[in-house]
Amino acid sequence: MSTGVRRRLGVEERRQQLIGVALELFSRRSPDEVSIDEIASAAGISRPLVYHYFPGKLSLYEAALKRASEDLAGRFAEPHEGPLGSRLLRVMRRFFDFVDEHGPGFAALMRGGPAVGSSATNALIDSVRQAAYEQILAHLDVAEAPVRLELVIRSWISLAESTALLWLDGRRIPRAELEIQLVHDFAALAAVSAAHDEEMSALLKRMVKDEPGDGPFADLAVRLLSLAG
Amino acid sequence: MSTGVRRRLGVEERRQQLIGVALELFSRRSPDEVSIDEIASAAGISRPLVYHYFPGKLSLYEAALKRASEDLAGRFAEPHEGPLGSRLLRVMRRFFDFVDEHGPGFAALMRGGPAVGSSATNALIDSVRQAAYEQILAHLDVAEAPVRLELVIRSWISLAESTALLWLDGRRIPRAELEIQLVHDFAALAAVSAAHDEEMSALLKRMVKDEPGDGPFADLAVRLLSLAG
Repeated sequence: MSTGVRRRLGVEERRQQLIGVALELFSRRSPDEVSIDEIASAAGISRPLVYHYFPGKLSLYEAALKRASEDLAGRFAEPHEGPLGSRLLRVMRRFFDFVDEHGPGFAALMRGGPAVGSSATNALIDSVRQAAYEQILAHLDVAEAPVRLELVIRSWISLAESTALLWLDGRRIPRAELEIQLVHDFAALAAVSAAHDEEMSALLKRMVKDEPGDGPFADLAVRLLSLAG
Repeated sequence: MSTGVRRRLGVEERRQQLIGVALELFSRRSPDEVSIDEIASAAGISRPLVYHYFPGKLSLYEAALKRASEDLAGRFAEPHEGPLGSRLLRVMRRFFDFVDEHGPGFAALMRGGPAVGSSATNALIDSVRQAAYEQILAHLDVAEAPVRLELVIRSWISLAESTALLWLDGRRIPRAELEIQLVHDFAALAAVSAAHDEEMSALLKRMVKDEPGDGPFADLAVRLLSLAG
């Protein structure tokens, strides 16, 4: 570029560029509202050339979703060090960063719609949920999850998704409040499950035993006690 | 029928019969696996005749979903009498009745897939969620929901959906345990929100003040205290 000569991009490089352009547009408007013409124009190439790299809008959409899914799954990675509550809070911050960056694209995807619902799309969403699930199990140091733990983790993941979606709808609650609240929700759902089941009770006790007095889990306990008092 | 003469059904009657047959088949296998041929055969009519009443499988699927949605929304209706926790528990029982009766159809719908994701389908799902949301608000005696209450209710509804879906996958936890646990989850999520917000704290206090000592909310408190003790 610095030579002033327009460089010809290789096939894979061009595909990656188009994916990036599409994701950038989807971060501001729903994929349904973004045309191939706009993507072509933003990438500085012709509409037929876009179709040369992607046979249709759905295939470009799926490629963009694949990159976004890998990006999100990557943000779940968190060192196995320090208190569990603080680890989860850091992941929640990165999750909201992602939701913030991909707003309309994330909302359109999770709400379903004309461009989504294909089996490839559903498989990608499920792969991200599975990555989140496996990360949490690994942090809890559980190899084989009891069925009630699986329920708590997976249903909490869906709670986090719906909380993020509701946040995007007007951003009426500060995201920092929701990030810490989701960590507290995880503890609360685990506690409800533990209140019904011995195995979950033992697991919860192990989970909180090394939590520091100034960590998110202790913060919840203090807040709830003050609420009851 | 008792005369031995095959009675001719009117158009609307025939449509309703086909919807009933489709729902019955979807309660045992996913809609994707049920062919128009099977529906025709189960209804005792020819395949072309099915197409006479429904132009395609999607339109029959949407009509079946519409009836199921109305059925489910109807089960949310609960008299405004007695403790809130017990009301919610009765609704949860009816919700699991519905999920139990419509197993594969419910799962296919909520997981998305080839037959779903149309805007008509999404609108029906949203209308059921909205009905659930409005019922809860009415029981809480709240006309205009503060944003944090809206978040608690709507995210809890998604938690109930995902819990039901996970239950359908092998039914490895007794449904009665999940019904009461979802009532407890509602209280726990409201408590977490109340721990962060004054308005929610006042609402929670109003919500639990008339709860009896043997109701679901008191049951949770007892269980959690015994867990902490």
